[in-house]
Amino acid sequence: MSGHTTSLRLKLPLLCLLLQLLTIILFASFVRYNDQTSPKLWHKELELHNKSHLDHEFYIRYPSFQDVHTMIFVGFGFLMTFLKRYSFSSVAFNFLIAAFAIQWSILMQGFFHSFHQGKIYVGIESMINADFCAGAVLISFGAVLGKTSPVQLLLMTWLEVMLFACNEYILLNVLGAKDAGGSMTIHTFGAYFGLMTSRVLYRPHLDKSKERDGSTYHSDLFAMIGTIFLWLFWPSFNSAITAHGDDQQRTVMNTYFSLAASTLATFAASAFVNTGGKLDMVHIQNAALAGGVVVGTSGEMALTPFGAMIAGVLAGFISTLGFKFLTVGDLANCGGNVPFVTP
Amino acid sequence: MSGHTTSLRLKLPLLCLLLQLLTIILFASFVRYNDQTSPKLWHKELELHNKSHLDHEFYIRYPSFQDVHTMIFVGFGFLMTFLKRYSFSSVAFNFLIAAFAIQWSILMQGFFHSFHQGKIYVGIESMINADFCAGAVLISFGAVLGKTSPVQLLLMTWLEVMLFACNEYILLNVLGAKDAGGSMTIHTFGAYFGLMTSRVLYRPHLDKSKERDGSTYHSDLFAMIGTIFLWLFWPSFNSAITAHGDDQQRTVMNTYFSLAASTLATFAASAFVNTGGKLDMVHIQNAALAGGVVVGTSGEMALTPFGAMIAGVLAGFISTLGFKFLTVGDLANCGGNVPFVTP
Amino acid sequence: MSGHTTSLRLKLPLLCLLLQLLTIILFASFVRYNDQTSPKLWHKELELHNKSHLDHEFYIRYPSFQDVHTMIFVGFGFLMTFLKRYSFSSVAFNFLIAAFAIQWSILMQGFFHSFHQGKIYVGIESMINADFCAGAVLISFGAVLGKTSPVQLLLMTWLEVMLFACNEYILLNVLGAKDAGGSMTIHTFGAYFGLMTSRVLYRPHLDKSKERDGSTYHSDLFAMIGTIFLWLFWPSFNSAITAHGDDQQRTVMNTYFSLAASTLATFAASAFVNTGGKLDMVHIQNAALAGGVVVGTSGEMALTPFGAMIAGVLAGFISTLGFKFLTVGDLANCGGNVPFVTP
Repeated sequence: MSGHTTSLRLKLPLLCLLLQLLTIILFASFVRYNDQTSPKLWHKELELHNKSHLDHEFYIRYPSFQDVHTMIFVGFGFLMTFLKRYSFSSVAFNFLIAAFAIQWSILMQGFFHSFHQGKIYVGIESMINADFCAGAVLISFGAVLGKTSPVQLLLMTWLEVMLFACNEYILLNVLGAKDAGGSMTIHTFGAYFGLMTSRVLYRPHLDKSKERDGSTYHSDLFAMIGTIFLWLFWPSFNSAITAHGDDQQRTVMNTYFSLAASTLATFAASAFVNTGGKLDMVHIQNAALAGGVVVGTSGEMALTPFGAMIAGVLAGFISTLGFKFLTVGDLANCGGNVPFVTP
Repeated sequence: MSGHTTSLRLKLPLLCLLLQLLTIILFASFVRYNDQTSPKLWHKELELHNKSHLDHEFYIRYPSFQDVHTMIFVGFGFLMTFLKRYSFSSVAFNFLIAAFAIQWSILMQGFFHSFHQGKIYVGIESMINADFCAGAVLISFGAVLGKTSPVQLLLMTWLEVMLFACNEYILLNVLGAKDAGGSMTIHTFGAYFGLMTSRVLYRPHLDKSKERDGSTYHSDLFAMIGTIFLWLFWPSFNSAITAHGDDQQRTVMNTYFSLAASTLATFAASAFVNTGGKLDMVHIQNAALAGGVVVGTSGEMALTPFGAMIAGVLAGFISTLGFKFLTVGDLANCGGNVPFVTP
Repeated sequence: MSGHTTSLRLKLPLLCLLLQLLTIILFASFVRYNDQTSPKLWHKELELHNKSHLDHEFYIRYPSFQDVHTMIFVGFGFLMTFLKRYSFSSVAFNFLIAAFAIQWSILMQGFFHSFHQGKIYVGIESMINADFCAGAVLISFGAVLGKTSPVQLLLMTWLEVMLFACNEYILLNVLGAKDAGGSMTIHTFGAYFGLMTSRVLYRPHLDKSKERDGSTYHSDLFAMIGTIFLWLFWPSFNSAITAHGDDQQRTVMNTYFSLAASTLATFAASAFVNTGGKLDMVHIQNAALAGGVVVGTSGEMALTPFGAMIAGVLAGFISTLGFKFLTVGDLANCGGNVPFVTP
């Protein structure tokens, strides 16, 4: 797959097993089923509160969880297949680091957010939050795409998840910010962490791998699979852990309108800035998603449909222009990709 | 992407922004959150009717909405990737016009169907209906695939959405027809509108683009992604806005059986009409879907499982034969594609 | 598509129509809407038990059903696209035999499991069980991939579905085993049946088709679409028909952790056994899924999260090593694929 083959033969297996073993030991020590997942606790709750099985949080949250899960593994996985000689590695490494990130973040988020009497109690919301954290790692992955070995990626994941949980704790619990769709905790954090990692890992001899940065017609199509699935399920991403009822409905609707408006703005900006009015696939990929991020923090507010559209238009426009006129070193690639123009 | 590059540089951005601006102004003037989406109205309803947040329509309709949303953006988007030199444009233009169609149809359907005291009140059902209307536009897109610029496509969408809402109003409200799965309002309307547009837009010099009408092995596989996602979620399409309970369940089941039977009939017909018994991918793509369309109007009726199967078999068979023996100018391409035989 | 073209011209259409006709006749004779699907019976139940439409089983089971449905048609369909000259046939034949299997298994499972007073009553659970049975057939399809005509595949499906229902009846009803995720009834049965069929159908002259067993870069990427969708929705597969409430939640969570741990173990094992530490795509494909199968039987038990991880690690490890060191004739390809190493 990539270079460094001899050391990979041992390093990658050892690191995978070490991290997995550490995770298992910490899970055995600290992680327990919460009151909705443990048979004993749930049946007690059923009796005490005169509830029915259908009042289980699972039936409210599971469809949203599966949408988010699809975004993490299909959306991000295929979004980064556009580098023609790196497509398969992108999907595979995305799979590996997301699979580790969700386990590790259950622990780290648990220690910071739901540590009661020495235990972490997990349920469907823990799974959604773990997927969110994996999203931040994958945004950072985008910034170092094609420049790192799977060993480095696993180590980056290990570190980033810990810092993510810490940053999230400070923002949400200490400073009391609201950020249901994770614009700050997930997208901004992931982008900055990725840029930082990209500098730390920078090795001059890897520059010759630049020729791998081209795309082919088919790798662009694979990348559109990722784009579309991310775009589709963004309303679920922003609403997956908001309060029940009207809040969840409003977040979905605001995100839906913001994304739609952002798409038109992106196509407009992309055709305008490119020579000959050609559309640039990478603009489309990233900027169309800007509409989801921009209402991530404020999704449940009563933005009104036209307010969400205005936010989406601005996000799509600014993001595309930023992509065109700023370079990698800047914050242009908040979406996490190396910018280039499709043929 | 396509020709006309110099004019696209300005025309496409201007049209996108003009349409988006018009949409935002009309939304600001007329569109309001409905009683399930507005925080004030929903909390009033909670108190008045002694409801819980979990009685929110959102929890009943959102999974169906996401299935329909996937059909519109992944299903239709990839269905039309089979033209080898047009694959990427198909997905991208599909994305652009669907993103505009859902916004514009919220307005147009709103004016015709839910205009109360000068305002349009929107909720989860409006989003499903907007996606339905986008479906009709994408069926028409199929009929002009490879022959039109994105500027023309946006203008077509603008016009078609208005006529769609008008036609839907006449059929459902004036004539009182039932058409939950939209066989008449969506599929038939979309196909006829596409044929009409195809004649209006016909420009002889574009005939040399015929060579682009070939498919490659990989573009066929991408198209199967679209086919399979459309097929999978058709039960959700037909049932997304039917009455709760047994009606919704029955529509899903009838569509499931009709689609399965239609698939076998299509494979049979395709192998029979082709030289050497080869299967034709485009037959499979379109005819397998005929099973979903044929029960679209009558889905919630007590068709019985075997009745749904008979409908599916006839739809698959007739649709494949029509595709083989009628030409584009006829109604053969109700599914919306230009017919050709795969290698 | 494949050879035998002249006979296919008649054999395939005749067999499709014959099987579909037989199915329709048996459905007309035996299959009826159950009490949740029939308008009369459901409205009676509404009155008798003071229920609301929202208590309908549909709202609990339908999202899980659609996840399973996606696994069967997208997951299995694209999993087997890796053979470069067989990609399109894999998706198409998968589509054909799954569409027949779901119809035929409604009948066969109905005769064995829900035959009351001469009728089979069908509802949303019947559809999930039918999809499960199709899963077993598709696992067997994997073992004969590239070696069979669609006519043979349909006959295999016809026979396998009957034996599946019989085996399931013996295991679950006679012996009283519990197997909600179908590890025994679906995965083990499907794998053994596939191996058996592979021997019966073995024709020496087809060995020259071995050259078709190669993969290309793009066929590997298509196969990853299948892998990821199977992996994503496996928690839904294992939990789709478990008891409501905590059981369903626990099955989902155990499967989620088992799959994540299995993924790391698989990457470790794959890099270790391959020359130069390269990752083998087929290992990743099959072994990552072993984590779902291994908790299929015991999913609803209180395995604890770390217990599920240990099961996943062992499954991923053993499955990858088995794939490397055993040959096709053995049970190595429980996942259903012909093993080979990616470039």
